[in-house]
Amino acid sequence: MAETSSKTKYYVGVDLGGTKILSGVFRNSLECVGTAKLSTKSQRGVPAVIERVARCVREALDEADLPLKQVAGVGVGAPGAVNFAEGRVIFAPNMEGWKDVPLKKRLEKQLGLPVFIENDCNIAALGVHVAELKAKPRSLIGIFVGTGIGGGLIINGNLYAGFNHTAGEIGHMVLDVNGPKCGCGNKGCFEALASRTAIFQQIKAGVKDGAKTLLTDMLGDHLDDLRSGDLRKAIRRGDKFVAHIVEDAAEYIGIGVANLVNLFSPEVVVLGGGVMEALADEMMSIIVKTARDYAMPGTMKGVEIIASKLGDAAGITGAAVLARRETR
Amino acid sequence: MAETSSKTKYYVGVDLGGTKILSGVFRNSLECVGTAKLSTKSQRGVPAVIERVARCVREALDEADLPLKQVAGVGVGAPGAVNFAEGRVIFAPNMEGWKDVPLKKRLEKQLGLPVFIENDCNIAALGVHVAELKAKPRSLIGIFVGTGIGGGLIINGNLYAGFNHTAGEIGHMVLDVNGPKCGCGNKGCFEALASRTAIFQQIKAGVKDGAKTLLTDMLGDHLDDLRSGDLRKAIRRGDKFVAHIVEDAAEYIGIGVANLVNLFSPEVVVLGGGVMEALADEMMSIIVKTARDYAMPGTMKGVEIIASKLGDAAGITGAAVLARRETR
Repeated sequence: MAETSSKTKYYVGVDLGGTKILSGVFRNSLECVGTAKLSTKSQRGVPAVIERVARCVREALDEADLPLKQVAGVGVGAPGAVNFAEGRVIFAPNMEGWKDVPLKKRLEKQLGLPVFIENDCNIAALGVHVAELKAKPRSLIGIFVGTGIGGGLIINGNLYAGFNHTAGEIGHMVLDVNGPKCGCGNKGCFEALASRTAIFQQIKAGVKDGAKTLLTDMLGDHLDDLRSGDLRKAIRRGDKFVAHIVEDAAEYIGIGVANLVNLFSPEVVVLGGGVMEALADEMMSIIVKTARDYAMPGTMKGVEIIASKLGDAAGITGAAVLARRETR
Repeated sequence: MAETSSKTKYYVGVDLGGTKILSGVFRNSLECVGTAKLSTKSQRGVPAVIERVARCVREALDEADLPLKQVAGVGVGAPGAVNFAEGRVIFAPNMEGWKDVPLKKRLEKQLGLPVFIENDCNIAALGVHVAELKAKPRSLIGIFVGTGIGGGLIINGNLYAGFNHTAGEIGHMVLDVNGPKCGCGNKGCFEALASRTAIFQQIKAGVKDGAKTLLTDMLGDHLDDLRSGDLRKAIRRGDKFVAHIVEDAAEYIGIGVANLVNLFSPEVVVLGGGVMEALADEMMSIIVKTARDYAMPGTMKGVEIIASKLGDAAGITGAAVLARRETR
């Protein structure tokens, strides 16, 4: 249970995703004292989702036995393009109707607290940088591999968003100009080659073509409800078909890392997201080896390539860091 | 002729390349008052090249009727990996024997002046940013297309070199993982698809396979002495074969620009280098259109994609900017 001295201020971090909303209450030290989770239900429309975000904040506070008034600020990581200064979600392709939504204003009205909005991958990179790495690296790239692939940049010790606040859109870096079609309309984007969506598509196409895999024993022929963790289980039980597809994805991630190291010369590259959380043991050594093979001589000297230990909590942690930064 | 008031201080910028050395004397206002040019003669060895750099500095000063003592500092843009703090060229693949050369120290001994060393593409980006764009954009990417492809980054108004001082190695960004072999050992690097070297290789391979082109009328069947300017001449006289190859290269440059805009969200993208200087009219509209097609929605808003007007002078200008920055 958290201290309830009325002088102690807390921060709430929210990770708003296409399928679920996570929230966490953090002390100034970034220790987490309560969390909550709700499904997003984006089909119910924008106002309903905003209400659910507010509810998720309240539920995390209830878990922590804290009243709203002890919260100094709320940070929200939102998917898609975000206007930080105005607190608007410009466009979130994975959520129905999310176009130019004044999320900051609406949430502030519901909660009576200052709210700050950032892109979800920027937020996750900030969380890893400040909470996991104690803000030591001067430059860092966060690569988050899940349904899609997103990135966040720390440059000269600070989150870097660029001119249009869109920097770090690494998922649509073209790696294979003649490669598989991407949701964005281009071919061979990073996320069309190595995201969970890309991995699952290859597995389903292989099964359709008669490939043998333990996954069909585990989940049935249609592989309904396939999750990243199932891939890990299948590989550990000796499934060569799944192992091969995951290795290919890890190689593409390694090439992506090499491109980014050539371009940014970061001190640290951090890999996170659901796919990495489930498959870090299977993928990291291939990612590191491929990245070192592909990067230019001299660019990798002293560069750390690591898997984040924050897992799913990177988003809520980073959102709390943002709230702390903006209210101090 | 330059003022010779003994109070006026000047800066010398040097562009050290694999085939030629350029130097220029600049006023504090960055007006150029004298230039010189020597071939590099890298086969004569490192000490001979360093002597030629010093000679090139003296010759530019002679052109400007100025004595060495009125120079506040000398900047040098060197190819390859550079350690700015120590003033060393770590490795320059296009120059014989250039491995860990203390260029700053040796030149300072020869000239008796403070010398500052930077990577040539960083320097060129700095020159364009400060002299051509009056340092207005907060963020800029310079893309220099010549024998290879190099880049330089301005972030938050300053040259950004990153942890290993190697940021901006855009030429080895993989764009086509199954594409043509690159000098670096990888496949489908940006510079293996769109540099002068790549364009010339495709032209020579086509001619070998019997393609018809005005270039063979102009230069003979072996295309000895082929230059970027010859491509322009052939295209303007209606050479479809050359036009097609140049258009393909422009498309790859456009894809490279889109990747970089997605990653950095810069305010301005500047294209320079020998290929752009010769073929900007033929390539720029294709580059801009392709970049806008490939970039993610929202990332291109208000972003300028322009060809530098400095041409060959970007390097010496940026080197003078460096010298001015470091001696003020």
